[in-house]
Amino acid sequence: MTAEVGVIGTGVMGSNLARNLARNLAARSGARVAVYDRDVDRAQALAVEHPDAEFLVASSPADLASKLSGPRVAILMVNAGAATDSAISDLVEVFEPGDVIVDGGNSLFTDTIARGEAVRQAGIEFVGVGISGGEVGALEGPSMMVGGTESAWSRLRPILEPIAARAATGDARAESSDGNGAPADRAQIDQESCIAHVGTDGAGHFVKMIHNGIEYADMQLIAEAFALLRSRLGLTPSEIAEVFREWNRGELESYLIEITAEVLDHTDAATGKPFVDVIADSAGAKGTGGWTVKTGLDLGVPVATIAEAVSARSLSSVSVLRSSGTALDGPSSTTSADDDAAATSAPVDRDTVIETVRQALFTGKILAYVQGFHEIAAGAQEYGWKTELGEVARIWRAGCIIRARFLDRITEAFDADPNLSSLLADPYFQDSLNAGQQALRDTVADAASAGVPIPALASALSYFDGIRTSRSSAALVQGQRDFFGSHTYGRADRAGTFHTLWSGDRSEVQL
Amino acid sequence: MTAEVGVIGTGVMGSNLARNLARNLAARSGARVAVYDRDVDRAQALAVEHPDAEFLVASSPADLASKLSGPRVAILMVNAGAATDSAISDLVEVFEPGDVIVDGGNSLFTDTIARGEAVRQAGIEFVGVGISGGEVGALEGPSMMVGGTESAWSRLRPILEPIAARAATGDARAESSDGNGAPADRAQIDQESCIAHVGTDGAGHFVKMIHNGIEYADMQLIAEAFALLRSRLGLTPSEIAEVFREWNRGELESYLIEITAEVLDHTDAATGKPFVDVIADSAGAKGTGGWTVKTGLDLGVPVATIAEAVSARSLSSVSVLRSSGTALDGPSSTTSADDDAAATSAPVDRDTVIETVRQALFTGKILAYVQGFHEIAAGAQEYGWKTELGEVARIWRAGCIIRARFLDRITEAFDADPNLSSLLADPYFQDSLNAGQQALRDTVADAASAGVPIPALASALSYFDGIRTSRSSAALVQGQRDFFGSHTYGRADRAGTFHTLWSGDRSEVQL
Repeated sequence: MTAEVGVIGTGVMGSNLARNLARNLAARSGARVAVYDRDVDRAQALAVEHPDAEFLVASSPADLASKLSGPRVAILMVNAGAATDSAISDLVEVFEPGDVIVDGGNSLFTDTIARGEAVRQAGIEFVGVGISGGEVGALEGPSMMVGGTESAWSRLRPILEPIAARAATGDARAESSDGNGAPADRAQIDQESCIAHVGTDGAGHFVKMIHNGIEYADMQLIAEAFALLRSRLGLTPSEIAEVFREWNRGELESYLIEITAEVLDHTDAATGKPFVDVIADSAGAKGTGGWTVKTGLDLGVPVATIAEAVSARSLSSVSVLRSSGTALDGPSSTTSADDDAAATSAPVDRDTVIETVRQALFTGKILAYVQGFHEIAAGAQEYGWKTELGEVARIWRAGCIIRARFLDRITEAFDADPNLSSLLADPYFQDSLNAGQQALRDTVADAASAGVPIPALASALSYFDGIRTSRSSAALVQGQRDFFGSHTYGRADRAGTFHTLWSGDRSEVQL
Repeated sequence: MTAEVGVIGTGVMGSNLARNLARNLAARSGARVAVYDRDVDRAQALAVEHPDAEFLVASSPADLASKLSGPRVAILMVNAGAATDSAISDLVEVFEPGDVIVDGGNSLFTDTIARGEAVRQAGIEFVGVGISGGEVGALEGPSMMVGGTESAWSRLRPILEPIAARAATGDARAESSDGNGAPADRAQIDQESCIAHVGTDGAGHFVKMIHNGIEYADMQLIAEAFALLRSRLGLTPSEIAEVFREWNRGELESYLIEITAEVLDHTDAATGKPFVDVIADSAGAKGTGGWTVKTGLDLGVPVATIAEAVSARSLSSVSVLRSSGTALDGPSSTTSADDDAAATSAPVDRDTVIETVRQALFTGKILAYVQGFHEIAAGAQEYGWKTELGEVARIWRAGCIIRARFLDRITEAFDADPNLSSLLADPYFQDSLNAGQQALRDTVADAASAGVPIPALASALSYFDGIRTSRSSAALVQGQRDFFGSHTYGRADRAGTFHTLWSGDRSEVQL
């Protein structure tokens, strides 16, 4: 009895992915799934708990290799870093040329590139796959971004495509009400499966990294909208949940908006208070947002709104800063219940404020996606990947955390012009930004006056205005650089590289 | 005839540093300076051009070693990266245990740590020294941030201290009108020399990196103030230069403010137009700002205002974005002469706007320094350096690009409380921020409405309000993370790690 695929690592993600694979392979071909874990008891427990999955439990990497039909495919679902390296070297010892090792963890794409080069020495294929959707996605259908060679993709596709999330094509919306997009018609797999080969070597993990960077910005923008509605209108979390539910029926429709309403409407059983008021107000991070920022810096791509989102989480956790907060002056603003009444003192029209914040959120969201897709385009160029940006948006429409109706517009933009230089060059996004920019301005100005921190919204607006400006104040910066460091400059009126003799007679020399 | 110190690399920085060394060593002890360059002709030309320096020109690394009295000291002034590695291996071959190799280039501090470990295998000391002040500083007195061991510092101190910039002690200001702070009284060297041993191994290059990150933010904030004065008041560059000169007589007094006035007042000879209107409005970068941001991410230190400054330079150079600028709507704002008249349409009081922008600039500047010093403190903790933050501010008061009267306040803050957790905990900075926060708010709100991009000012305000807030909207982010990824959360009312069973009965479990 052999298995079609092996899963290594039976933590929550690995277990769920293995169950997803077993369910789909059994339904299609009766093929089996092998599982292996360094903690053999844990793999055994998984098999016992899910007898219907008919897992083949391997007792060692060699045993796993013996249980897999060739060319072998093993999917690593272990922690990024040392655990991944260790699992790879175990497999390289027992696999044969032509076999395929898949890293389904959250590895840094440059690690994936390096690992692929090393593993290829043994004639073994190495494929980094970005898997998004969390525990539920792994079990019910994740969004998957696949790197590696074309030949590895040919081997993997029949295994992974059936377990991916599915989204309806074109303008139709994802059909399942839970947002995971379980399809009505399995025959449409090729068009609708949320999986794609997005480039060679590290491309899969790169695109997943950007997905997460965008996710950071999306979440921060939503948190800022919440803070504004709380502070400016004195709405309760439950009332704000209702606002988000309403927003979820329009162009903002997305999984993150949906779960925001769920979180805001949740009451803490222990205290009877809104849940959002009792949990510690410091947000953690697992690194992929920071990677997106660092890689943006390496590629020369401005991703300031994503950087602000990462910074905001960091700031929320730095007690050495926040402990000084009470000594600092400014308007009273809060997202806690204590000041709900006080916050309503300014006379504002509730519906107008809500609609303005909604437009600001949507506009900021577009600008965060512009930054993220810009970074994907720059990464593809830098690393020689043939990443289709419209395809990326297509596979994010279901299964992953940032799944949203909005992604159809991105796919349409790149379908209309596959060579689109930037989302900013697409008429729909131009129109949307132009329609929303005044609301974004009003919101940023209002928040600045009211003392509500809105780092991502403010950054998005400065990004927008920075792009819009016909003459950037960067001219002055470049002048300063030439003054103190002889860094030279270009001229707006003719080509060439110039330097002014600042310590001399201040004449200009062409270099 | 032997030399007290060798300089390797006779580009502009290396030549100027060598001349500075020769001048000072000759004046004090008659000691000589050896110079070596892979391009021997270039080193020879330096000696011919400056016969008074009495350089000993070495023809090879071995010849250099033979010309140096022991324990030998050689200062590398070559490009960071491969050239530095190559020069180091050349020296390791000809140097002996106890000799000292100094890297005076802009190396990444982690490279310095790694190189030090490698060089130490040969018993040779390796010291990374951050040298700030550009060409003029190298010649007339730079600010120097020294890493490496105590014993290496003992060997280097008598060589480097005399060539450093000097600043007056205490409240007195740097005396020289050119801002380089040439001292009136050389006897005060110990107190006033702008050089310090800031920690072991990579500490010198780390502190220099932060210096540059702060410099990015400082320059961007100034550029935003310029853009606001131009756009909101329709002032000409020459008029704005006068404003900056006035500002340079108050708490903003600094080298960067001084040279901003020089750049703004400069007229392009070819066109007769203001210089700032004819140079290309895209700013370059050499990487140290980006390093500051990346390292901040690694250390969990929010440095969003520095990140915005780096991003703004990047954005100014990305034509694929800026080419879409004309399709985007918003208020007309410009920093070019074309709209100077139009920009004055809103009725504003000139003096009020100028004073508000000045206060906003000063407040934003403080917040950028809070971020930079926070990163130094975090780096020192992470790497085990005994970096004295007050000492860092002290050695930045002259010689370097961010030299400013303001740095005295930072030194005073750490003198008053050497264990100060953050500049935010210091009464002077609290008072200054509280005095300026309303101006910063007004400026950000005004710029948002007027369409002037002010990424650094807006980021500084959100940082300030993020610190100030009693309940951060990060609570919602953490709730979202627990919902979709089971990332768990803390509670504000009791210790422990918790998770809500979102897909189950929504009860809370303690982990």
